[in-house]
Amino acid sequence: MIKKNKNNITKTTITIIKNGTITTPDGFYAEAIASGIKQKNKLDLALLYSNKTCMVSAKFTQNKLNGESLKWTKKIIEKNNSCKALLVNSGNANTAVGSIGLIHAKDIAKDISKKLEIKPREVALASTGVIGIELPMNKIKKGIEKIELGKKSGKKFSEAILTTDTHSKQIAIEIKSNNIVYKIAGTAKGAGMIHPNLATMLAFITTDASLDKKWIDKTLSEVVNKTFNMIDIDMDTSPCDMVMLMANGDDLEGKIDQIHPSAQIFKDGIYIICEFLAKEIARDGEGATRLIEARILGAKNNTTAKKVARSIISSLLIKTMVKGKDPNWGRIISTIGNSTSKMNEKKITIHIGKIKVYDKGVPINANASSAIQEMSNECVLITINFNEKQGTATAWGCDLTEEYVKINSEMTT
Amino acid sequence: MIKKNKNNITKTTITIIKNGTITTPDGFYAEAIASGIKQKNKLDLALLYSNKTCMVSAKFTQNKLNGESLKWTKKIIEKNNSCKALLVNSGNANTAVGSIGLIHAKDIAKDISKKLEIKPREVALASTGVIGIELPMNKIKKGIEKIELGKKSGKKFSEAILTTDTHSKQIAIEIKSNNIVYKIAGTAKGAGMIHPNLATMLAFITTDASLDKKWIDKTLSEVVNKTFNMIDIDMDTSPCDMVMLMANGDDLEGKIDQIHPSAQIFKDGIYIICEFLAKEIARDGEGATRLIEARILGAKNNTTAKKVARSIISSLLIKTMVKGKDPNWGRIISTIGNSTSKMNEKKITIHIGKIKVYDKGVPINANASSAIQEMSNECVLITINFNEKQGTATAWGCDLTEEYVKINSEMTT
Repeated sequence: MIKKNKNNITKTTITIIKNGTITTPDGFYAEAIASGIKQKNKLDLALLYSNKTCMVSAKFTQNKLNGESLKWTKKIIEKNNSCKALLVNSGNANTAVGSIGLIHAKDIAKDISKKLEIKPREVALASTGVIGIELPMNKIKKGIEKIELGKKSGKKFSEAILTTDTHSKQIAIEIKSNNIVYKIAGTAKGAGMIHPNLATMLAFITTDASLDKKWIDKTLSEVVNKTFNMIDIDMDTSPCDMVMLMANGDDLEGKIDQIHPSAQIFKDGIYIICEFLAKEIARDGEGATRLIEARILGAKNNTTAKKVARSIISSLLIKTMVKGKDPNWGRIISTIGNSTSKMNEKKITIHIGKIKVYDKGVPINANASSAIQEMSNECVLITINFNEKQGTATAWGCDLTEEYVKINSEMTT
Repeated sequence: MIKKNKNNITKTTITIIKNGTITTPDGFYAEAIASGIKQKNKLDLALLYSNKTCMVSAKFTQNKLNGESLKWTKKIIEKNNSCKALLVNSGNANTAVGSIGLIHAKDIAKDISKKLEIKPREVALASTGVIGIELPMNKIKKGIEKIELGKKSGKKFSEAILTTDTHSKQIAIEIKSNNIVYKIAGTAKGAGMIHPNLATMLAFITTDASLDKKWIDKTLSEVVNKTFNMIDIDMDTSPCDMVMLMANGDDLEGKIDQIHPSAQIFKDGIYIICEFLAKEIARDGEGATRLIEARILGAKNNTTAKKVARSIISSLLIKTMVKGKDPNWGRIISTIGNSTSKMNEKKITIHIGKIKVYDKGVPINANASSAIQEMSNECVLITINFNEKQGTATAWGCDLTEEYVKINSEMTT
């Protein structure tokens, strides 16, 4: 990931910081507690705070149903592009509860603002969990009182935002570019179902760099389109999905923008963070045992490649074939046929891992046993080359297991 | 289904014929045998024959990968609009086998034409089963020799076209209109997976009516769009999907066309056949235990209604909630949010069966236990009213069970 920037300065490095968390970048503090929204004393209230005002870049769900906490955050970010704190609760989505939902959101922002001596409009919110049940405000208010921020609670923050995820997901990196050090960190929770309603994909990125708003909005869109938007567990988006980047650097002269010498390396850094988290989410899909990576090459254009890549990782037939470790190229070629407007199967090659199973219209059945080996890997790589033009795309998903059905059908209202 | 026609003649009736099959309409004959394509002496070769030339109306798969037998049929139908015989084999899709596939298809059509003393271009073909393996031509050729057509083998025909379906699907009706009697019959096999590759939706309709080609093409399109195109098992179309209507009536003066007094009642008849078969296919989805019917009312337009209806029956979250008998309206409202470009949840009502669970933005949690009862029905009806305009649509699907995953992941190449 070391690239020349436009001024031909090559002294740029990206290093992954061991045990790095969301509070690794300078000026970020966090804490999480069990307020009682979730049962069994599980962490469910997570606060992130920056001692300097953050410039914010955010992407919100495409679902036409929006959670009330998300509505609040959308409003303050669209108006001010900034915040100093973020409160996330898990266990309750604050969604489809009627007009009380937004009143509760405002009330929480007010409590946090009092506690941190900032303005309510500097408090972003995110909620994930049950739909249609009002937030237990007393528990949350008492919880907020108890929170004591610190530098070491980044991992706790990542744990408190989880729902049906099996483990927390976090990463931090250090970028050295032209003798300046930037730190970027990220955490996320997964997509999949939660008792008794929807779960949500939440991803938060912190950095101590100073960023140009216009540049980071464009950059984050590009990166999110290639990472978080290229994963799929069960084809649903939730009313509370959110990716939010908080940058607290205040070096106005050194602001990273399109022509800044560190622009490319910083974008690479954001990409590393988002790809890591996206793959972690896919890998941790409900009931999943293995990751699927679909790589499309040589397509007519990137749009076609993207469509095919997404179809491959979303197909129930491919998801179950990965579960069964069955290198069934017939399901792959048929899924391609389903997702393209034109196809010339006599040009297409398909690899499973390193093994070619389909060569320009002809199956290579002799390779089946080697392909079964490749299907047993923790990450099953399916590469499709259209051999037409230069379109490429990569998408990630997971296998479909009996456990997924069990998790999602055994929840009674 | 008794409607006034344009001449205000009301003496029109539609009656379902008990134990009716594909050979119930006059002039149709069938037979099926076990040729050895499938193991265990299962029926796998089915021949349908009409003693008069049939006008044919057909719809073929949208998948860009086309089976070789389907390619043959598409070609002869597009050229001649007619046929006298149809040979269906199950157990092998004759798909993605290279150029030998079409040679085999031609060879089979030739064998049938010799046997029946008709022309090869009067022989339509359909194949369903394994992808990528050449047809066992010796077995098929020997099988064709053995076939002896009869009037009583309609049910056998329906059995021989099956793959992973658990039972055959057939229906026949009689229409009386203005003292004329028409018979229409239909049979179909299901969508879902088959060892080791794709299954296919095949539907065949026979009638002894004389039909105007232009009118029936339009009518069949309209009906298929509301029936077969509104079911979903696992979101995949196969390279061999086909709906084919054969009409052998030769009354040129009495040809049913747009202005014919029986046009509406005949269309109703086609609709009854197609809806019955479509629902039977959905009900018999792999591993399915229950049918889901999504009815959309009051949408902005029919296109929106259709999109939402299809999303509801395709959502893994709704499919698993039906499996679990969980009246989880949150998954429904969120799926609507996923599938519409605009939504006003404060106008929407949701019923499960007869029970209202969501009323214009507000969940009716008190009705949960009655709704659980409705979720236990063999057909779970989900009605969504947008209360906006007049758009309506209905779609059918089935629940997602551990059994589906088992069937589709336990097949090793």
